[in-house]
Amino acid sequence: MMAAAGVNVVRMAEFAWDRMEPRPGAFDFSIFDETIDVLGAAGIETILCTPTAAPPRWMTSANPDWFRENASGVRMTHGSRQHVCTNHPEFRAASERITRAMAEHYRDNPRVIGWQTDNEFFCHISECFCPACGRDFQRWLREKYGNIQALNEAWGAAFWAQTYGDFSEIVPPRQDRPTYPNPGAQLDWFRFLGDAIRDFQGGQVNILRSVQPRWWITHNGTFQHVDYWNLAEDLDFLGVDVYPGFTVQKPEDYWWAAVKNEEARSASGSYIIPEQQAGAGGQWPYLHRTPDPGQMRLWAWQAVAHGADGILHFRWRTCRYGAEMYWNGVLDHDNIPRRRYDEFAREGGEFARLGDSILGTTLSVKVGVLLENDQDEAHQTMPMGLPSPDEQRRVILRELLRRKLEAGYVNAHDSFEGLGIIILPGFVLMDEDLAARLGEFVERGGLLVATARTATRHRNNHVSEFTPPGFLRDVFGATVEEFGKLERGSIDLEMAPGVVAPVGDGYEILSLRGARALGNWQCSRWPAPHAASGLPAVSHHVHGSGSAIYLGTYISADNAAALIGLVLDHANIPPLAVASDGVEITCRHSASHRLYFLLNHSGQPASVSALPVGTDLITGQPCDGDCTLSPFGVALIKA
Amino acid sequence: MMAAAGVNVVRMAEFAWDRMEPRPGAFDFSIFDETIDVLGAAGIETILCTPTAAPPRWMTSANPDWFRENASGVRMTHGSRQHVCTNHPEFRAASERITRAMAEHYRDNPRVIGWQTDNEFFCHISECFCPACGRDFQRWLREKYGNIQALNEAWGAAFWAQTYGDFSEIVPPRQDRPTYPNPGAQLDWFRFLGDAIRDFQGGQVNILRSVQPRWWITHNGTFQHVDYWNLAEDLDFLGVDVYPGFTVQKPEDYWWAAVKNEEARSASGSYIIPEQQAGAGGQWPYLHRTPDPGQMRLWAWQAVAHGADGILHFRWRTCRYGAEMYWNGVLDHDNIPRRRYDEFAREGGEFARLGDSILGTTLSVKVGVLLENDQDEAHQTMPMGLPSPDEQRRVILRELLRRKLEAGYVNAHDSFEGLGIIILPGFVLMDEDLAARLGEFVERGGLLVATARTATRHRNNHVSEFTPPGFLRDVFGATVEEFGKLERGSIDLEMAPGVVAPVGDGYEILSLRGARALGNWQCSRWPAPHAASGLPAVSHHVHGSGSAIYLGTYISADNAAALIGLVLDHANIPPLAVASDGVEITCRHSASHRLYFLLNHSGQPASVSALPVGTDLITGQPCDGDCTLSPFGVALIKA
Amino acid sequence: MMAAAGVNVVRMAEFAWDRMEPRPGAFDFSIFDETIDVLGAAGIETILCTPTAAPPRWMTSANPDWFRENASGVRMTHGSRQHVCTNHPEFRAASERITRAMAEHYRDNPRVIGWQTDNEFFCHISECFCPACGRDFQRWLREKYGNIQALNEAWGAAFWAQTYGDFSEIVPPRQDRPTYPNPGAQLDWFRFLGDAIRDFQGGQVNILRSVQPRWWITHNGTFQHVDYWNLAEDLDFLGVDVYPGFTVQKPEDYWWAAVKNEEARSASGSYIIPEQQAGAGGQWPYLHRTPDPGQMRLWAWQAVAHGADGILHFRWRTCRYGAEMYWNGVLDHDNIPRRRYDEFAREGGEFARLGDSILGTTLSVKVGVLLENDQDEAHQTMPMGLPSPDEQRRVILRELLRRKLEAGYVNAHDSFEGLGIIILPGFVLMDEDLAARLGEFVERGGLLVATARTATRHRNNHVSEFTPPGFLRDVFGATVEEFGKLERGSIDLEMAPGVVAPVGDGYEILSLRGARALGNWQCSRWPAPHAASGLPAVSHHVHGSGSAIYLGTYISADNAAALIGLVLDHANIPPLAVASDGVEITCRHSASHRLYFLLNHSGQPASVSALPVGTDLITGQPCDGDCTLSPFGVALIKA
Repeated sequence: MMAAAGVNVVRMAEFAWDRMEPRPGAFDFSIFDETIDVLGAAGIETILCTPTAAPPRWMTSANPDWFRENASGVRMTHGSRQHVCTNHPEFRAASERITRAMAEHYRDNPRVIGWQTDNEFFCHISECFCPACGRDFQRWLREKYGNIQALNEAWGAAFWAQTYGDFSEIVPPRQDRPTYPNPGAQLDWFRFLGDAIRDFQGGQVNILRSVQPRWWITHNGTFQHVDYWNLAEDLDFLGVDVYPGFTVQKPEDYWWAAVKNEEARSASGSYIIPEQQAGAGGQWPYLHRTPDPGQMRLWAWQAVAHGADGILHFRWRTCRYGAEMYWNGVLDHDNIPRRRYDEFAREGGEFARLGDSILGTTLSVKVGVLLENDQDEAHQTMPMGLPSPDEQRRVILRELLRRKLEAGYVNAHDSFEGLGIIILPGFVLMDEDLAARLGEFVERGGLLVATARTATRHRNNHVSEFTPPGFLRDVFGATVEEFGKLERGSIDLEMAPGVVAPVGDGYEILSLRGARALGNWQCSRWPAPHAASGLPAVSHHVHGSGSAIYLGTYISADNAAALIGLVLDHANIPPLAVASDGVEITCRHSASHRLYFLLNHSGQPASVSALPVGTDLITGQPCDGDCTLSPFGVALIKA
Repeated sequence: MMAAAGVNVVRMAEFAWDRMEPRPGAFDFSIFDETIDVLGAAGIETILCTPTAAPPRWMTSANPDWFRENASGVRMTHGSRQHVCTNHPEFRAASERITRAMAEHYRDNPRVIGWQTDNEFFCHISECFCPACGRDFQRWLREKYGNIQALNEAWGAAFWAQTYGDFSEIVPPRQDRPTYPNPGAQLDWFRFLGDAIRDFQGGQVNILRSVQPRWWITHNGTFQHVDYWNLAEDLDFLGVDVYPGFTVQKPEDYWWAAVKNEEARSASGSYIIPEQQAGAGGQWPYLHRTPDPGQMRLWAWQAVAHGADGILHFRWRTCRYGAEMYWNGVLDHDNIPRRRYDEFAREGGEFARLGDSILGTTLSVKVGVLLENDQDEAHQTMPMGLPSPDEQRRVILRELLRRKLEAGYVNAHDSFEGLGIIILPGFVLMDEDLAARLGEFVERGGLLVATARTATRHRNNHVSEFTPPGFLRDVFGATVEEFGKLERGSIDLEMAPGVVAPVGDGYEILSLRGARALGNWQCSRWPAPHAASGLPAVSHHVHGSGSAIYLGTYISADNAAALIGLVLDHANIPPLAVASDGVEITCRHSASHRLYFLLNHSGQPASVSALPVGTDLITGQPCDGDCTLSPFGVALIKA
Repeated sequence: MMAAAGVNVVRMAEFAWDRMEPRPGAFDFSIFDETIDVLGAAGIETILCTPTAAPPRWMTSANPDWFRENASGVRMTHGSRQHVCTNHPEFRAASERITRAMAEHYRDNPRVIGWQTDNEFFCHISECFCPACGRDFQRWLREKYGNIQALNEAWGAAFWAQTYGDFSEIVPPRQDRPTYPNPGAQLDWFRFLGDAIRDFQGGQVNILRSVQPRWWITHNGTFQHVDYWNLAEDLDFLGVDVYPGFTVQKPEDYWWAAVKNEEARSASGSYIIPEQQAGAGGQWPYLHRTPDPGQMRLWAWQAVAHGADGILHFRWRTCRYGAEMYWNGVLDHDNIPRRRYDEFAREGGEFARLGDSILGTTLSVKVGVLLENDQDEAHQTMPMGLPSPDEQRRVILRELLRRKLEAGYVNAHDSFEGLGIIILPGFVLMDEDLAARLGEFVERGGLLVATARTATRHRNNHVSEFTPPGFLRDVFGATVEEFGKLERGSIDLEMAPGVVAPVGDGYEILSLRGARALGNWQCSRWPAPHAASGLPAVSHHVHGSGSAIYLGTYISADNAAALIGLVLDHANIPPLAVASDGVEITCRHSASHRLYFLLNHSGQPASVSALPVGTDLITGQPCDGDCTLSPFGVALIKA
């Protein structure tokens, strides 16, 4: 059935440690040998996974101190997965032993083409407070700071008498304290978590690369406290597991899955989907809504539309037991092919046929939404109920896609080449290097956009001693004289006489130092003369060949259309085509051609116009600039 | 005052261990001896309770390892009740010592007529994770499975590498794990809890029976993780504590108290009420609403109407101290009789006068709502936000009572003799024996009704490899081709052209294999063409002399009237009488006569018609087929 | 900048233990010496704080058993504040060592004028369950009860077999028990907490007083489980930290800050504000709304209006790091003076100019809302979802202030001299002494008002054996025959034909024994004839020269206007002046003059009339009885 459906690669072994090493040191790969052979004979290649997310019971029985320790100091128990501390040196050794055993066993198997490390780092749990983690954190800090005085300064330890005399006195920030933690310590803890899991993975990667250099290696994200840009440095490309069922409740929620794809693409350029939803996912507390006919294929195409170069669905047949026994696969529990199999086979046939046209192209991005893991971490150290960078990125991306722009996430460490607009959502941390690179972007003609609280802290999480936006003051030609949070609806932003955007959560009062105001604050429902009334809220500053817009508020679902509209008034970025809100359009291009991906996320037919003349590669029909999509339909216009 | 109110029995000593054994081994029953004598002189007999739900402080001081351990591994402390592990072997010995001491002391006291074991097993807490429980669970599993391979298969331990090498490696499913537990392990853990508490009780029961065979023994339920059908095997009859105040907020909520009664009746046939609400119950977080005048008596009659053969109210005088000092009794804190006493005395006089007419009759049940504890446990291992068997049973019972049908709960282990309809609510587990018994029921002329997900798993909690409803496919003449969960209101069930029932939570698409469709799915508010549209949702199959209806959804509060109506269209079950929704009617019968219980749960007068000709035993007035009930009034028509 | 703003005193060192004692026993006060000198040269004096709310890391590293233990038995970790047990005898010794070192160092420094002990006892956490606390609690109980039989009786330990054989068997009431605790034990635990923190403070106070008798000593409250009336016995006066930002979301919420001031004033008469809000407070989970222009000064004047004789704002410059790095001070992170500094300087100038006119006057109170910490504690032992004394006090105070009455909190231990009305909100506990004092108040002409459940328990938390209101029955001339809780809106109170007050939560049925009914119960939305219908709900009783009104319900936000209005119909208390709801008016007086504080909490101009003729000390303008206030404006009329 797999071969008939066009499958050319499978993924296996990710939780099979107990099968491969049923007793300590006694390895048995026979079931996988046999399976790989059978699949290979049908032309299907194999990706192997290291099984380290589920250490077997004989191992945890013998080593109870390998279990993670939770934030209350309680040791985990056996019985689910991710139960063992990935920083424990003895478990790291065990992880490397099983990786080496697998690698050496499969070194010469031509059907094994690549590897996935572990499985979804931090998907359930990212923190561990065991003694091994405590020691590792101390070591990490010692390497970072060199001496304890430097750490005390970086953490502002003088506050609340938290000065440390030695690195050995430091404990991870557990929840069992009377009140809030030190935000400097918390930020370093989050950074440590990401570095530590990269180290853990590194031990496996080194072995795999040394045993068989032809293998490629990936990992399936994306989850919090991992810096995927860093993690991907050690990989050939990143993977991302996409389960729209977690949040797509209405067709127009398609943008959520776009977010997951953009997270992966911005971290590693080319990427794959190791797990694409194949039916409703179900676990103890929830059961996803079942995808409508066509949605599984649509989401697979959406991934390709954002740059994915490989798609695997999770899972083949729905497992009849275990914690994921209602995580539906392509086949049901009774192994009978039904509509999901048919859709899977259709998709498989299309990819087999069109793969060559797609591989080698990359996503075209003109409007970049800047992403940096450090910003997300910094927000979490002091959220104060304000919108996170992640929340802002999502609504900005949704709004840009709604306008059919060539838009996507861009990692702050990457080149800004080719971008017309860069939007900084919640970049509270700023350093002189990044500020200089952003300044150059503007000087060379780009449009830079920032939201509230941008560049208000240094990298050590101290609030800057400079009036915001600190290192970017000259670029924006404005300073922030007051910041505050107000109940939603108490103040609005007047962008032009009578043109008002609802503003929630936060306001900033700007002082213009070269910039001009694009909009002012106006009181709405607050029954008092607000301090910000009539004062500048949005500024526009010509700087070099480009310009910079400072938005003295957060971008949220209810003001994104207005604020992004205001930004676009000052740029010249044409849409890819014209279509209703439920239609997503992206473009992948190479030197030779452009591919327009038209994705109808609505349950109604939809039309697209203002396309270039070309050919729909899926149907083979010519496209004269207009195109009609069936419900949940897809078109791929080559122009 | 008790005697004047018609009291003929009291219950005592359930939390008095510290009084009866103030120091280890030093017994002093004098206060009870005296009380029993005084009561006996007034013609009042005594039920004694074993005091094991509240071990005294000298015992827990000396044995801190007897305290329960919670799901995070923290030991309980002294200061409330149910604080000690009932599986600890030393506590079991202590439980049997105090039981034997009481039993021998009262062996020859003619006023002591029966016993209650402990108090409300699992009312606050059902789980304990102490080492003794761990060892007991391992022993229970060893006895069940014999060898560890059998357990690994039953639990599907291959998933997430959970294979066990030995029973000694197994730990109870504590919450301190990174994610969801193994549903096979979880189900066995729940079953173990029920078996273990039955064992604990068994130690007491054996002593009581051996010391004085004339005593009867009961226990007061009902709470989760106890299989009362099993527990009652060791008792003479079950008791159930009924506190409508926990949920009856509006008069029409009367059905909730019917549920508690049906739970007891279906477990043991005849039963008693050791604790019937006598005023507002109050504890730390809540205070019930105060029963309206007449409601206390009404609820007592409701219990009798469902089959109870004895009623005790909790409590006599409201206690002036302790955690239940606002749990109101018949008398207030100041010991002055007021309206609750008057109502209590009225009720007491009625029962004294009419007891002989009632005893010996049993509830008449034509429509059985099937109950099996294993089904409730299986649901809890994987709830996924779907309606539980218990939730479905409740709304079904309410709808059947609203229609004045002879309806009740029937335990799946009991005979189906005499039933016209059996409804299976949420019977996900199915085995060939039960399937055969249900098939025979249909073949002999019965109507079998099932709701979504019936017979989808084996007893080991594995999802069946057969297309649902598995072992019942031939009986229903239909299979389920797709199951899913949808937001409420996105799809409806069209039972006939234009006749639409709202469906929440789940849908199943049926394939007809001999059955005919009684209704099809239709899209409502979901803005896309749903996969189920126009396909069969409900099937009807003639099988032998009877028939079977498969409902491809859950029964919930908002569709119960429509779906039960659809079912009843295919049966011939007349109502007991005609009355408005607020009136509950049941019938107890013997070979010689039928007793119609008319219960007005509304605060307005209500009339009942289409009754048989007879006599209202309470008023002594003849009934010509019509009857008028005062607010919260009761009539008992003998026909 | 401080001197220019009129600052004459600062507060420092409260969390600087690590700075003052960087290594065990090595003291270094140089930074404070220097700062105090610099400030002193500018005419600014210093209040020092003992730094014991933040023990340094070297101390907790060496003494891990000093960390608090939470209700689950988990030890706290380092990294915030209040992490160490104030009952641990070794930490108490350390607390006294640092206090003595500071005191001796500053004994002869003339710039140091007073001290604050620790910081905000119990602001984050009031309980600790470590072994030291357990032993202390046992000792406290032994001293209170003398023998264990007395404790068993006081706690009603017979209930649920909780009898203790020895004080050593008692454990603090941790949460890890299967169900609700003993309310007698719980009440003693709460009382112990308050006594223990007073003892802890006493160790510091004794040292400070012995080293330098000229120093005054204060502490900054107010938080739960501290009896500030007791605590202030050891102080010269109490302080209270006022942060309206925690709850003032709309201008009309001004009353909340009045509550904090009244808590302090009723505890110690004269008091100060060690921390008055100076900007939006922000921590991990929240960020206050930013005060409108004028509100900071308004709140400072409000404190003075309630009796405060000193105001300090928290904080000077906003700290750039640490858990409170978004707790905004007078200056922003960049140290630049903006509108908050300007407002601070205006306020500073006014206080400097008018201080002499204000000092020596005290708040004029005619209507006293009685406060006793024991009542709050008793409520918490058995809340049952009913309104707390604190909730009732707040809405009563708000209503009295809305009516511009001379009203305030009065501690139950204080004299009732000068009061016209005393309101008892939720005084469930009653003893014969307090009852006698209240009776005398009435006999001498006062009006006493009680709400539901008044005088229903003895001091040991047992429900009284007397019909309520127990010891106050003769004063009220009525008894309570039934009490219950009902869903809000199901019953109303008819105060006169057609005059109906909505009643929530609770009802009591009164029996008149000399009193007459002022209002009766009437059913509203409950569809049944309620037991209370038509029966007395409020009574009025002439007793001696005065009278007593019993309100058979709780005072809540939605009935306060009606019920307080009903009360005032039976008294003769004129308002201070006439103004709209947003204006608060208080009066401070001395033998020679009266000061009317007019506070406009609304964002609109407001007028006040019916004032006495006088002079506005702020503007120097005469007042002829009318006065207009700007938004958030203040006037101070001397008459």
